[in-house]
Amino acid sequence: MKALPMEIARPYLLFLGDVPDALAAKTATGIVDWRKDWCVGQVRLDGCAADTGLKDMSISEGSAAGAKTMVIGAVNAGGRLPDHWVDSVVEALNAGLDVASGLHVKLGDVPAIKEAAAKNGRQLHDVRHNSMTFATGKGIKRPGKRILTVGTDCSVGKKYTALAMDKAMNERGYTSSFCATGQTGVFISGRGLSLDAVIADFIAGAAEWLSPATEEDHWQVVEGQGSLFHPSFAGVTLGLLHGSQPDGFIVCHEPTRSKMRGVETPLPTVDQVIDMTIQCGKLTNPGIRCVGIAVNTQALDDDEALALLAKLGERHGLPATDPIRYGMEAVVDKVSAEFGTP
Amino acid sequence: MKALPMEIARPYLLFLGDVPDALAAKTATGIVDWRKDWCVGQVRLDGCAADTGLKDMSISEGSAAGAKTMVIGAVNAGGRLPDHWVDSVVEALNAGLDVASGLHVKLGDVPAIKEAAAKNGRQLHDVRHNSMTFATGKGIKRPGKRILTVGTDCSVGKKYTALAMDKAMNERGYTSSFCATGQTGVFISGRGLSLDAVIADFIAGAAEWLSPATEEDHWQVVEGQGSLFHPSFAGVTLGLLHGSQPDGFIVCHEPTRSKMRGVETPLPTVDQVIDMTIQCGKLTNPGIRCVGIAVNTQALDDDEALALLAKLGERHGLPATDPIRYGMEAVVDKVSAEFGTP
Repeated sequence: MKALPMEIARPYLLFLGDVPDALAAKTATGIVDWRKDWCVGQVRLDGCAADTGLKDMSISEGSAAGAKTMVIGAVNAGGRLPDHWVDSVVEALNAGLDVASGLHVKLGDVPAIKEAAAKNGRQLHDVRHNSMTFATGKGIKRPGKRILTVGTDCSVGKKYTALAMDKAMNERGYTSSFCATGQTGVFISGRGLSLDAVIADFIAGAAEWLSPATEEDHWQVVEGQGSLFHPSFAGVTLGLLHGSQPDGFIVCHEPTRSKMRGVETPLPTVDQVIDMTIQCGKLTNPGIRCVGIAVNTQALDDDEALALLAKLGERHGLPATDPIRYGMEAVVDKVSAEFGTP
Repeated sequence: MKALPMEIARPYLLFLGDVPDALAAKTATGIVDWRKDWCVGQVRLDGCAADTGLKDMSISEGSAAGAKTMVIGAVNAGGRLPDHWVDSVVEALNAGLDVASGLHVKLGDVPAIKEAAAKNGRQLHDVRHNSMTFATGKGIKRPGKRILTVGTDCSVGKKYTALAMDKAMNERGYTSSFCATGQTGVFISGRGLSLDAVIADFIAGAAEWLSPATEEDHWQVVEGQGSLFHPSFAGVTLGLLHGSQPDGFIVCHEPTRSKMRGVETPLPTVDQVIDMTIQCGKLTNPGIRCVGIAVNTQALDDDEALALLAKLGERHGLPATDPIRYGMEAVVDKVSAEFGTP
């Protein structure tokens, strides 16, 4: 670990550009959902169809309001940085802000941005890229306790579940922190890395770095990535499982999906995910166990959702909940029963 | 897949530098073991203690003998490129050769080398680095048949076993090719990539690229990496397993080892590796099965070796062999029995 971890200065000014719909600004929305108090406002260009609900302001107004970093919280089609967004980034750097981006293109690869950052002595953060060097994973048990969210698929609520669990743990008197492994998560925690951008040899080592040794009674709630059953990304998932060496894990599931995201592979069952996670995870934490099931029930009405959760909970002898609809209390209860109260 | 695959022009001139022992030149030794007919000779500087047995020659003699690429087949302490090696690389470029390296340092990052390559219009190949872009893994079954070598640990003979199996398959009338996934393997095949240098998101996609669709009766024998049970590298292993979607796999094992390479984790059993490989591998190839066990018996005498192989073979109902001592015939027999003769 030769480079410093990425630490993004706060508060943020969120840049939404002129994206044509709300989905294109989901990074900004995620930040506001979880860290509204870290944000001074939003910058929207003419024609922007997204809205985080934050106060609209110009870049100079954001700077005057105390913003330290402008976060590009939207993606345009193709993931590129259009010329008129470059103008806004340069304006932010000239106004004394750092700039952080989750785009595929690196900010520093755009000459005008690179020059403006150098001229103003500002930082550029490309959270989708990673210039840190890591040790390879060691597999040795570290002090502290960890919970990892895993999934039957990609994009089934692993980040949201981890954030909700972290919040619920803290509210119940545990000391807990959220460990980010993806770009939106990094903005929400102010620290972390996009694990899928790490060189393959260092996945587990990077996961060890991002959930480091802590006080023995401190909990880290680690944002999961991919799925052990996803044919594109399972390697990242396994390296994260080995490196984060969780004591407990929460299985995240989306019940209306029949095929895994982006591929033709059928979804595994929750049973399969629990079994495989324990089989693989015990390599670095023999005590690993499932502490709950988090289901995105958005597509179901209340009766259907509650019936499904009851059925899943009973079958597995585990709390099953929808973090958004029904909270994480039941899973925290399970953690208390398994590992003790704070 | 936007860039061209790495294709290294042959024949090779092997550069051994002035390394202090034979082990430091193991890349060159591996090339000579398997592709002696691709090599015109070796270049050794004063004090070199390694010897591949090839004819010693100067760089200009190598060029006159028809060499197209000088391969740096040795590593010095620290994996860096010492100044006097840089002089030899520049000399090779000026003599009209391409240069290929498996060192951690990139050839093109050394200004004198970069300039000489540009001036002479020569290629630099850094097989440990990868500038290709890949699609993410698709998980769809491709035409052709594949065998993957897997291991109870790193460095247990997966490359050697794959090469021996490829050779034995071809000798028995199968059409077979070797798919390289590590640096020495790339030099031996003239194509491939260091899978552990790929960005984590693309491990499976890169594995799909390196074992592409072929004629239905063609066999690809894929060099394995790491181990599903190694806490540093299992993510690479799983992505390779999913992406190469093997029909058959061979478990490679080193019986005297008690801990996995570089870590404190105990070695898994051959049983565990077979079970986990089938459980994970059936995601992209439901017919996956083990076709043999390859044991490095170097530390055992003949009686001990044969007794161990007999015991392992009987326990698993599989051919167990040492590829170096006893060849791969028994494993080819098993492939014939399972999948038909050529």
